[in-house]
Amino acid sequence: MEQVEEIIEKFVKDAQEPKVTELFNTQAKGKRVRAKLALIIANKEKASRKLAAIIETIHFASLLHDDVIDEADTRRGKASVNAIEGSKVAVMVGDIFYSKAFYELVSLGEEVAQIVSDAVFKLSRGEMQDVYLGNDFNQNPQLYEEMIYLKTASLIEATCEAAAVLAGKERVKYALYGKNLGLAFQIIDDVLDITQPSEVLGKPAFHDFKEGKTTLPYIYLFEALDSEKKEYLQSLFKKDLSLKEKEWIKSNMQSTGALEKTLQKAHKLANEASALVATEDDLLKIIDKVINRNF
Amino acid sequence: MEQVEEIIEKFVKDAQEPKVTELFNTQAKGKRVRAKLALIIANKEKASRKLAAIIETIHFASLLHDDVIDEADTRRGKASVNAIEGSKVAVMVGDIFYSKAFYELVSLGEEVAQIVSDAVFKLSRGEMQDVYLGNDFNQNPQLYEEMIYLKTASLIEATCEAAAVLAGKERVKYALYGKNLGLAFQIIDDVLDITQPSEVLGKPAFHDFKEGKTTLPYIYLFEALDSEKKEYLQSLFKKDLSLKEKEWIKSNMQSTGALEKTLQKAHKLANEASALVATEDDLLKIIDKVINRNF
Repeated sequence: MEQVEEIIEKFVKDAQEPKVTELFNTQAKGKRVRAKLALIIANKEKASRKLAAIIETIHFASLLHDDVIDEADTRRGKASVNAIEGSKVAVMVGDIFYSKAFYELVSLGEEVAQIVSDAVFKLSRGEMQDVYLGNDFNQNPQLYEEMIYLKTASLIEATCEAAAVLAGKERVKYALYGKNLGLAFQIIDDVLDITQPSEVLGKPAFHDFKEGKTTLPYIYLFEALDSEKKEYLQSLFKKDLSLKEKEWIKSNMQSTGALEKTLQKAHKLANEASALVATEDDLLKIIDKVINRNF
Repeated sequence: MEQVEEIIEKFVKDAQEPKVTELFNTQAKGKRVRAKLALIIANKEKASRKLAAIIETIHFASLLHDDVIDEADTRRGKASVNAIEGSKVAVMVGDIFYSKAFYELVSLGEEVAQIVSDAVFKLSRGEMQDVYLGNDFNQNPQLYEEMIYLKTASLIEATCEAAAVLAGKERVKYALYGKNLGLAFQIIDDVLDITQPSEVLGKPAFHDFKEGKTTLPYIYLFEALDSEKKEYLQSLFKKDLSLKEKEWIKSNMQSTGALEKTLQKAHKLANEASALVATEDDLLKIIDKVINRNF
């Protein structure tokens, strides 16, 4: 993984812009889940380290633009680039990292380049669906799942699939492992937004609903409420919630079983992912970390 | 060229987002200089049409982000996407077009994909240099030229080079033709900002200096002025200029020969481009159109 970090730092340096390096260094590195997946599946070969660095660079670029779109001030416990330098700079630095990653991607061969670039196309469409779904209180779990597949799971799926191609392994199997893992990852993220305090998350807690994101726990909660309470929940949509309102949501999510149902969904996806890699300890461990985390 | 438009429309449709299609249709198509270059150099083969569509899609994506960064309300005589839907949507739609273009690019082979993706990396760095150069009154013509090479000329250079690769022609020659053409193109653009009215430009006139862009005519003007007038010119930097101040700039640009010197620079670059393709009428015509235009 150290070598992966070195490749990423080389990408940053290649931009030949002191400001880019400076801003890159203000940001936390994250969990590097995608890089780990690439290294494990592609057996730590040289190409797998490059793939890992490319994917993390793409992920970093997408977060820069995501924070502009969500007007997020913090990311991984630190001030976001848009909070430090404004959204225009965050757009530009994101473009620099995206284009560098694409340039490097080409050298990994047509098959890998197509898998990864298609995922970035999906990710960009997912970002847009996320915003437009937020115009109204979304009650449709299928629309939510399609969006998180595009926005989050597709890049994890592509990481695993591309790594499998590099290693000459079954691409369909690893793609499906990655897809299920990615969906579970996002669903757990959405649960943590409700259950964890800001200090643990490294970003504002209880933020999704205010941002117009009706995540799975909210959809299941809505399904379970009587019509009077349904109306009350809808009245809270996109509002700056008081402590009392947050407590109401949390306790109803517990009493109706909405939170439990969401966790079951994540566990089901994780189990499906586990079944695909039943003999591969390192990949099973990643699933475990994704599911049993508190930030 | 009609077939190129069809391929671009297919790219738009592949995003499967009604909003993307809707916004795409609000925008003017532009002069399609890059597409014409690709078709001419690569002999209108099938791959050249795809290259042309990809380059125009990249160019369109870069303009969407450029308008966010410059806070531009109009583009090609129409309201910009950020003016219609806000800068967040413009960022997202730009990302969708960038990633789609990269995905399609991969199928044109490693050599072409590397040339074009490297240009997008340059373009993104050029955008950033443009913004940071605007923090102060830039007096250095070399910094200006490096920036416009990255921001504007690199993609035109890459278009010509990639088209030459597709057609099995000398890539170095066509790359240099494209680079000189691109530099001349941008210098003419910077002159038009000063000499043409908004109605003709399709965007606000006399806008660069206010935006912090000390383009070549301003750099040459500054060089030619005495110290008192130098100070006056610097005092106008980034200001909302009155009609009188604009007139002062324009008349001093004429009396000092700064405007003429800038045009000579553009003509010199155009002549260098012409010398490289002396027997190719279609490419000479493009140079002529780039130089002798009023918007």
